[in-house]
Amino acid sequence: MKGGPFLKEIIDWKSPARKNKMKDRLTAHAVLRASCILQKGIAAKLTQFVYDAGAEIIDYDHYVDIEKNYFYCRMEWTASLEEIEQDVLRARFRDKIAGPYRLDWDLRFKSRPLRLAVFVSYELAHLYVLLMKCLSRQWDARIEFIVSNHADLAPEAARFDVPYHHLPIDKNNKAVQEACQLALLKERQIDLIVFARYMQVVTETLIRPYENRIINIHHSMLPAFAGAKPYHQAHARGVKLIGATGHYVTLDLDAGPIIAQAVKTVDHRKSVADLVAVGRDLEVEVLARAVGLHIDSRVLVRDGRTIVFD
Amino acid sequence: MKGGPFLKEIIDWKSPARKNKMKDRLTAHAVLRASCILQKGIAAKLTQFVYDAGAEIIDYDHYVDIEKNYFYCRMEWTASLEEIEQDVLRARFRDKIAGPYRLDWDLRFKSRPLRLAVFVSYELAHLYVLLMKCLSRQWDARIEFIVSNHADLAPEAARFDVPYHHLPIDKNNKAVQEACQLALLKERQIDLIVFARYMQVVTETLIRPYENRIINIHHSMLPAFAGAKPYHQAHARGVKLIGATGHYVTLDLDAGPIIAQAVKTVDHRKSVADLVAVGRDLEVEVLARAVGLHIDSRVLVRDGRTIVFD
Amino acid sequence: MKGGPFLKEIIDWKSPARKNKMKDRLTAHAVLRASCILQKGIAAKLTQFVYDAGAEIIDYDHYVDIEKNYFYCRMEWTASLEEIEQDVLRARFRDKIAGPYRLDWDLRFKSRPLRLAVFVSYELAHLYVLLMKCLSRQWDARIEFIVSNHADLAPEAARFDVPYHHLPIDKNNKAVQEACQLALLKERQIDLIVFARYMQVVTETLIRPYENRIINIHHSMLPAFAGAKPYHQAHARGVKLIGATGHYVTLDLDAGPIIAQAVKTVDHRKSVADLVAVGRDLEVEVLARAVGLHIDSRVLVRDGRTIVFD
Amino acid sequence: MKGGPFLKEIIDWKSPARKNKMKDRLTAHAVLRASCILQKGIAAKLTQFVYDAGAEIIDYDHYVDIEKNYFYCRMEWTASLEEIEQDVLRARFRDKIAGPYRLDWDLRFKSRPLRLAVFVSYELAHLYVLLMKCLSRQWDARIEFIVSNHADLAPEAARFDVPYHHLPIDKNNKAVQEACQLALLKERQIDLIVFARYMQVVTETLIRPYENRIINIHHSMLPAFAGAKPYHQAHARGVKLIGATGHYVTLDLDAGPIIAQAVKTVDHRKSVADLVAVGRDLEVEVLARAVGLHIDSRVLVRDGRTIVFD
Repeated sequence: MKGGPFLKEIIDWKSPARKNKMKDRLTAHAVLRASCILQKGIAAKLTQFVYDAGAEIIDYDHYVDIEKNYFYCRMEWTASLEEIEQDVLRARFRDKIAGPYRLDWDLRFKSRPLRLAVFVSYELAHLYVLLMKCLSRQWDARIEFIVSNHADLAPEAARFDVPYHHLPIDKNNKAVQEACQLALLKERQIDLIVFARYMQVVTETLIRPYENRIINIHHSMLPAFAGAKPYHQAHARGVKLIGATGHYVTLDLDAGPIIAQAVKTVDHRKSVADLVAVGRDLEVEVLARAVGLHIDSRVLVRDGRTIVFD
Repeated sequence: MKGGPFLKEIIDWKSPARKNKMKDRLTAHAVLRASCILQKGIAAKLTQFVYDAGAEIIDYDHYVDIEKNYFYCRMEWTASLEEIEQDVLRARFRDKIAGPYRLDWDLRFKSRPLRLAVFVSYELAHLYVLLMKCLSRQWDARIEFIVSNHADLAPEAARFDVPYHHLPIDKNNKAVQEACQLALLKERQIDLIVFARYMQVVTETLIRPYENRIINIHHSMLPAFAGAKPYHQAHARGVKLIGATGHYVTLDLDAGPIIAQAVKTVDHRKSVADLVAVGRDLEVEVLARAVGLHIDSRVLVRDGRTIVFD
Repeated sequence: MKGGPFLKEIIDWKSPARKNKMKDRLTAHAVLRASCILQKGIAAKLTQFVYDAGAEIIDYDHYVDIEKNYFYCRMEWTASLEEIEQDVLRARFRDKIAGPYRLDWDLRFKSRPLRLAVFVSYELAHLYVLLMKCLSRQWDARIEFIVSNHADLAPEAARFDVPYHHLPIDKNNKAVQEACQLALLKERQIDLIVFARYMQVVTETLIRPYENRIINIHHSMLPAFAGAKPYHQAHARGVKLIGATGHYVTLDLDAGPIIAQAVKTVDHRKSVADLVAVGRDLEVEVLARAVGLHIDSRVLVRDGRTIVFD
Repeated sequence: MKGGPFLKEIIDWKSPARKNKMKDRLTAHAVLRASCILQKGIAAKLTQFVYDAGAEIIDYDHYVDIEKNYFYCRMEWTASLEEIEQDVLRARFRDKIAGPYRLDWDLRFKSRPLRLAVFVSYELAHLYVLLMKCLSRQWDARIEFIVSNHADLAPEAARFDVPYHHLPIDKNNKAVQEACQLALLKERQIDLIVFARYMQVVTETLIRPYENRIINIHHSMLPAFAGAKPYHQAHARGVKLIGATGHYVTLDLDAGPIIAQAVKTVDHRKSVADLVAVGRDLEVEVLARAVGLHIDSRVLVRDGRTIVFD
């Protein structure tokens, strides 16, 4: 278990010159997430399995929820494995560990980037940060297509050669358009949906099949101002902090598991328009953080609560 | 208007050795807060008045709310004035400026410390920070007495020679006890009431006569979790930030004008008990900040919105 | 002085639908920055001048440095002025106010976007945030060209139809290449240079003609770790905060006037590579904030100290 | 390993009513800190040992430094053990685990509060927060005595019945006074020394015997301003953040392992005196956090780098 040389490579990888070399080895790079009822020696069992596969662990973190008697773990490792060996390993893990210990688990080989679909309405900033993170290879992910209820951002999608599906929503066609969205998502084998200020309420048609795989960004203030025009309400009471929350989408609107949050300080000199601008910058920052944590397989969810191995 | 020498004195004043010297000059130290509909030359008019009184301005800040067409100002100045001259000056200000320009105003001479009453239940930390700020002379204020619905903190009050009024509240005696509290407040000419985790809902008996003169501290989280056990709710959703809000008390519970707010970052490793502890430290910090801003006459309130000249 | 209707328009302007309408009125939108030794009635004099020109003030802020006896002011206003009238107004301001009061001043009519030149080496994230802010019209600015000592980002410049000047620097050619840069800057009438992780030390050839018009982003940690590999040093001591500072470039490297700063919390679980990644995100955020403040004419500098009317 | 009922008791314990009951069980409450070269199954070995002792783990956290191939662990557990059994357990741990695995370790039974000595000069705020944390039983610690080079705070020590040793330092007597301090520290079996703005440089006489057991608070700004009057320097450059660092004292002044850090936002409206005041509040907050982390045995140090299990 010597992470030294490999870690150095990761750092180098971030310099543009070394991109290609790294790509070839990515087949050997894996992340395992697992959780289960706390059982004696479970951590040792998991790490032993990885050693036995001839792998090197390059990142390890776990969390024991003493109150709930529950165990959560994330392990990042690398090994020289052909694609076929990956399937063998996965099967062996299922039989030897996941089954007997009744794990909730997920083993991802980084042989291909995660496939994203981005839902937008008007906001350029939210879209750009996602594009930049993918194109700069800070994220191991690719935007497969963009969906929007408006045509405004189509030229931006064209600039980046990303397919843009303009699916306008009105009172009568929501069911049809969601069916259409669902078909696109399945056809392109989407792993993660990002709502980048998509100004539409979605139904269980989309939410159920993508549980904990749709990320939304929500303004949120201290204390929360429910109802319409939250920035006007915040301004009216002289709020001193503006916040944003990145969360998974659930049927209970804006109440899904929280992945990331942040705030910015404001004062009375800020007009409502200023607060909106501060809020937007913050949303972009928090959305990028939340999506990045998901892409790196750093988020586990249980009973609506997130464990984030940041 | 040369602030140089005087400001230096203020800095020196904070060193313990110079306390006494400063005290003698405090009669000459004043803070004026004023607000009105924006009128041409109003700022010049105010500063001119202070010059004409032979005073030196040592701090000046104003804010123009363009949208509401409203002007807010805070001026701190010093002059060699006997107490009787103060009354003359105040009267002249009323007649020459405040009347004609229809100002909402307040002129405070720092000839005596502000008089505080602190309402507590159990929490030591909130009380101590208030005592420390007064005793160390960081604040120009004195705690006249402590009110509590419990006897627990009486020994602490004794340690500091502060009168402690134990006024237990039950279903039937709230009206009587509040009348008693009101009598105490009037008798001791209290300027500001601080609720330092006072676990009782107070009625308009107290709130009306002390509008914008009662400060409360409220936990608040992003997004807000209404109802009982907010820390349990926050924990259940994996909240990443814990917050606190210092505000004036209004009849609409916990919805008064906001004076100060802050947050702390938390993660899944924090138990509910940990979140409570983080929240308490934060409350202490924010309560001290809110009360300090009030004591320095830095807060103006209009239509439920605060202007804080921090 | 009724900001109401206009301000509403500003808010609306941010919605994509109203962009074009707003554009026509931009000729009438101006920002005045002014500072001088504190003189009686100076604030009234300035606002009076703007009224007399038939303008509406839509944002006003000023700061009086009591210790230094100095006055700083920023005023944003709008009026129906032809371009020729702008010149008349500017001349009248020079003669009637700026001269007699010995102002340090700057009056900018927003008839054309500010012209930016961006200097880069490898980093995509820093470049993208600048492009996004301009293209989304959050900033009243345009990137005229990009300069780089490397060819790596040329394809990105092409994607956005921005000219890209590849000017490699080695031991012997720095003087020649800086002369070339200077020629480009002058030819394109550049208002502001942004160093978006430009990994070259520049000389007074560039710095002198663009005093307080070159913005750089600098990692900075608490306490600062001087010398090479600051993230390694920070990691070695278990640093808990990573910071970034956006500042004007002066001959004294990394010691120029500070425009914006921010920090992020980190812990021992972060590897050096993680710290670098956190630092990069933070740099992008702070660089965008610093450049945005400059573009909105919100920064004044005197004796190496910034006054930021945020 | 069922933390449920016990944890609930911890929460209840924080309510004043249950204090005494908890106290009786504290003999059974222990914290183990351990670190070593990463070895297969080490985590399982440690937890197994605690189970075999009949204990319940109530908090568990560990960190694997992949790059350095090092393992760090903190375990909090409770068991019904007489004092004599504690010694037996400790001896068994030494022989069976610590020896064979070559652990760097520390096992603390919470049978008695940690013993603190506080070194002060003038600052009341720093002292009060320490007193409050102990008296409110938020910390499992007691202030045994206060040392000062000045007499100013003696009355405050008297108020809390804490012995106050006035040991003035001049050019010639430092060696004598440090010998005296050392004698006091030994006589009272001090576990932790807190420098609460003690304005004296101490020598290796004190530092060596209390390695990683002296905590100091240091202002620190972004970027750091070395030399005298750091707040004046920060003000002169228009700094936007004020910071503080809580760290262990080493012979290399102000460069010891970092336990906690925080910053506050400031702007140009803050005078030097204001910055000093902001800095003091922040120092108090960070000092309390750093000392609290130490008291809860949450800090491990290796090669000058802290691992903080917060």
